[in-house]
Amino acid sequence: MEMINGFSKLTTEEKISTISKLFDNPKDVADYFRSFHHQNPRIQELLEEFSENTLSNFPMPFSVAPNFLINGKNYIVPMVIEESSVVAAASNSAKYWYRHGGFKTEIVDTEKIGQVHFLWKDNTDLLRYKFPELKNALIEDTEAITENMRKRGGGILDIELKDLSDKEPGLMQLYCTFDTKDSMGANFINSCLEQFASTFKEWYHHEPEFTGEGLEIIMCILSNLTPDSRVKCWVETEVDKLDNIVNGVSGADFARSFELGVRVAEIDPHRAVTHNKGIFNGVDAVVLASGNDFRAVEACGHAYASRSGQYRPLTHVELNEGHFKFTLDLPISIGVVGGLTNLHPLVKLALKMLGNPDATELMSIAAAAGLANNFSAVKSLVTTGIQKGHMKMHLFNIMKQLEVPREFKGPIVEYFKTHKVSVSEVRKVMEALQFTGKLNNSVKI
Amino acid sequence: MEMINGFSKLTTEEKISTISKLFDNPKDVADYFRSFHHQNPRIQELLEEFSENTLSNFPMPFSVAPNFLINGKNYIVPMVIEESSVVAAASNSAKYWYRHGGFKTEIVDTEKIGQVHFLWKDNTDLLRYKFPELKNALIEDTEAITENMRKRGGGILDIELKDLSDKEPGLMQLYCTFDTKDSMGANFINSCLEQFASTFKEWYHHEPEFTGEGLEIIMCILSNLTPDSRVKCWVETEVDKLDNIVNGVSGADFARSFELGVRVAEIDPHRAVTHNKGIFNGVDAVVLASGNDFRAVEACGHAYASRSGQYRPLTHVELNEGHFKFTLDLPISIGVVGGLTNLHPLVKLALKMLGNPDATELMSIAAAAGLANNFSAVKSLVTTGIQKGHMKMHLFNIMKQLEVPREFKGPIVEYFKTHKVSVSEVRKVMEALQFTGKLNNSVKI
Repeated sequence: MEMINGFSKLTTEEKISTISKLFDNPKDVADYFRSFHHQNPRIQELLEEFSENTLSNFPMPFSVAPNFLINGKNYIVPMVIEESSVVAAASNSAKYWYRHGGFKTEIVDTEKIGQVHFLWKDNTDLLRYKFPELKNALIEDTEAITENMRKRGGGILDIELKDLSDKEPGLMQLYCTFDTKDSMGANFINSCLEQFASTFKEWYHHEPEFTGEGLEIIMCILSNLTPDSRVKCWVETEVDKLDNIVNGVSGADFARSFELGVRVAEIDPHRAVTHNKGIFNGVDAVVLASGNDFRAVEACGHAYASRSGQYRPLTHVELNEGHFKFTLDLPISIGVVGGLTNLHPLVKLALKMLGNPDATELMSIAAAAGLANNFSAVKSLVTTGIQKGHMKMHLFNIMKQLEVPREFKGPIVEYFKTHKVSVSEVRKVMEALQFTGKLNNSVKI
Repeated sequence: MEMINGFSKLTTEEKISTISKLFDNPKDVADYFRSFHHQNPRIQELLEEFSENTLSNFPMPFSVAPNFLINGKNYIVPMVIEESSVVAAASNSAKYWYRHGGFKTEIVDTEKIGQVHFLWKDNTDLLRYKFPELKNALIEDTEAITENMRKRGGGILDIELKDLSDKEPGLMQLYCTFDTKDSMGANFINSCLEQFASTFKEWYHHEPEFTGEGLEIIMCILSNLTPDSRVKCWVETEVDKLDNIVNGVSGADFARSFELGVRVAEIDPHRAVTHNKGIFNGVDAVVLASGNDFRAVEACGHAYASRSGQYRPLTHVELNEGHFKFTLDLPISIGVVGGLTNLHPLVKLALKMLGNPDATELMSIAAAAGLANNFSAVKSLVTTGIQKGHMKMHLFNIMKQLEVPREFKGPIVEYFKTHKVSVSEVRKVMEALQFTGKLNNSVKI
C-alpha cells in the first residue's frame, strides 16, 4: 500500500470511497459505512466535524440507570458504555440505596490547574522579589481573556512561582490555579497560560536589572491532575439493615466480607487497579454521556490513586459500632458547557434528563455512578463471585454470535446453569439439539 | 419522581416511551431517540444487547488515520474518539514518520494475571510444603476450562502462593499467570480462578493434617494490572533529519526542546498526567475501534506509570551523538477475539481494515497511535504552543454551535487569526458583520 496524500481534504463521500476500495467488496463496505450515518444531514455533519477523517458513526449503547437518589434528588442517569453488566450493576445498586437513604456527596473543591514551565538562568532571588509585580502584569494582561469567566464568578485564583532547579538545572514554573465554573476549562486555561508566557517574556526583557538572556519558556499547558477538583460520595446504613442483601447472608457477615474485600485492594496494587477500573466503568459511562473527556478523568483519578507512593483504591469502608459507610474520593474535572457538551446531539438530551445540572452536580452524579458500580462489583466478588453474572452475559454473547434461533435459547440457558460456558461447548450443545442452521456472524461485512 | 420498578424488563420501545414521558415533548424526544437507531433491525438489536436499559445509540466519530508504517507494514488505523485534533495529530505524526522509517515495536510479553485472595488460619508451613500437590490439583481441575485455550497454545502459566499476612493477619493469595493468546481473556481467567477456589476448598477439607477450619476464600478476580503484557514502540532518526520539522527550527534545537519537554514530565507529576493523557488519546481511539475495554487499558497504564512511587511519563527520549529515539513503554491487555470484538458491527470492519491482526499486532498498532499522538502534542507544546491548533478547533466548534452560515465563516476565521477566540467575541463579530439570523443550537431537542 502506497502512502496516501491529501486524505483529510477529501469529502466524507470521497473518504468512504477511498477506504472502501481497499476491501474486496467496495460497494458493500461503502454502503455499510453509510448505513451508520444519521438520517438527518445536519446532525450527521455535526457528528463528522467532532473529529477528523471521519467515515461513519461508531454506535455505543446509550442507556439509562433509573432510581439514583443523590442528595435527596431522584435521577435517571444516562450511561454510555459498551461493556455488558455495567448499567445493570449501577441500576441494582441505585435501587438498593434508594431504599436506604441514597447517595450523599460533598464537593471538596473545583480548583483547576495550569503550568508555564520555563528554564531560568538569571537572578532567582530578584525574580522572587519582583514576582508580585510580575503577577500583577500577568493578571492584567489576561483581563480580556478572563472577562467572561469573571462575570460568571470564576477566573484566575492564584499564580505561584515554583522552583524545580534541584531536579533539572534552571527548571522553574508558574503554577496557576483557576476557577472555571461550569466548564472543564481547558481552552480558557491554555489561553491564559500562553498569555502569561508572552507577558512574562515581555516583562523580563523590560526589567533592566535582569540580563535579558536568562528566560526560556518550555511550554504552557493545563494539568489534568486536579486533586482539588474533587467530590466525595458515600452511602451509609446500619449493619443490620444489610441483612439478606445477598440471600441468606447476615448484614454483619456481609459488611465484614465487604470491608475485607476493599482492604485487599488497599494492600495489593494488583487488586487496587481492577477495583478502581470498576469505579471508572460507572464514572466514564456518565462522562461519555455528558460529552466530557474520559481520558482526562481516568488520568487524573489513577494518578490520584497513586499519590501515597503505592497505587490504592479510591473507595474506602468505615465499619464502626454497627454502622457501615462506603465512600468514594474522586478527583474529577468535568463541565456542562463548552467542548462537546453543547454540540453532541445526544449529550444535550442526556443533560436535560439530569435536569441540566451545573458542573458540581454532574461531578456528584458521575461519582454516584462510580460508587454504585464499585458497590455492586465488590458485593458480587465477596459473595456469589463475579462469574455467575458474567458467564450468563458471556453465554448470551456467544448465542448472539452464533445466531442461535430464539427457540434454542431456553434449553441452552438451562443446560449452562450447571456447565461451563465456552463457544465450543455451545456449538456442541447446539449439535446435540440438532440445530443445523449456519453458525456464523450476523453481520456479513 | 417516584421509584421506577421493572424498567429493565420493558421492551426498548417501552423504555423509550417511559423516559420520553419525563420530558415536556414526549413524542419529539421518543422520535429523536429512535432517529439514532440503525435502520437494520438485526444490527440495532445487536447493539442494544451489548448493554442494559438501552434506549438509543450514542454516535462517536469513526475515523481513520492513514500512513501508519509499523514494523515495515503500512496501516490505515481506525480511530474512535470524540475529541477534536486527536486523529489529525495521529495522522500528521504517522505521515512524518512514514518518511523517516516508521514505527518499530517489540512485544515484551503477553502475560495476564489473576488472583484468588484468601484468609489462612492454619499451618502455613504445611501449606507451603504441600503447595506443589495443590497446584497439580488446581491445574487438573481446570483442564476442561483450559482445553481450548491450550489447543491455541495458551493456558495457565503458573500459580504461586503469596503471603501478605504482614499487612493483614492471615491474608494470602494464589497469584496466577496466564497466556490467553488472541483474547483479552477476562472470562477465561475468572472461570479458572473460581475453579481454583473451589478445588482449593475441596483439597483443604480432604487433607487430614489441616484443621479444616482455617481457609476463607475472599474473592477470585483477574487483575487489570498486567505490567508483563507490554509493548515497546519507538521512532528514531538522526537529529539533522529533524531540521524544519517545524518551520525554521533546526533539528538540534527541536530535539533538545523535545527532550526537555519530556524531561519536565519525568520531574513533575502534574505534567506527567497530562502527558500520558495525550498518549491515551491515541491508544484509546484504537482500543475503542477494536472493541476492547478502555477502562482496563487506562487503569493498567496509569498504575504502571506510578510504579516507581512517583507518577511518571510512559514515553522517554534518548538523545545521543546526534541520534533521536522516542519510545513508549505501554502495558496493555487487549484482544481480537471474544468480548465485543466479534460482535460490534463496526469493530469487525475495523479489524479487517487492519488486516485482521492478532492480539500482539493490535497491541503494536495501539501503541503506535499513542506514540504518534504524544509526539505531535509534545512537538506543538515545545514549539508553536498547543493553543494555535486548539483555538482554531474551538472557533469552528463555536461557529457550529451558533449556526454560522457558510458565507460568514471565511471573514470570521480571518478575524480570529489575530484575536482571542470566545463565544462572546464570535457573537460580537457576527453582529459587526450584520448577521441577524438566529444564534442558537442546531438540534432542537
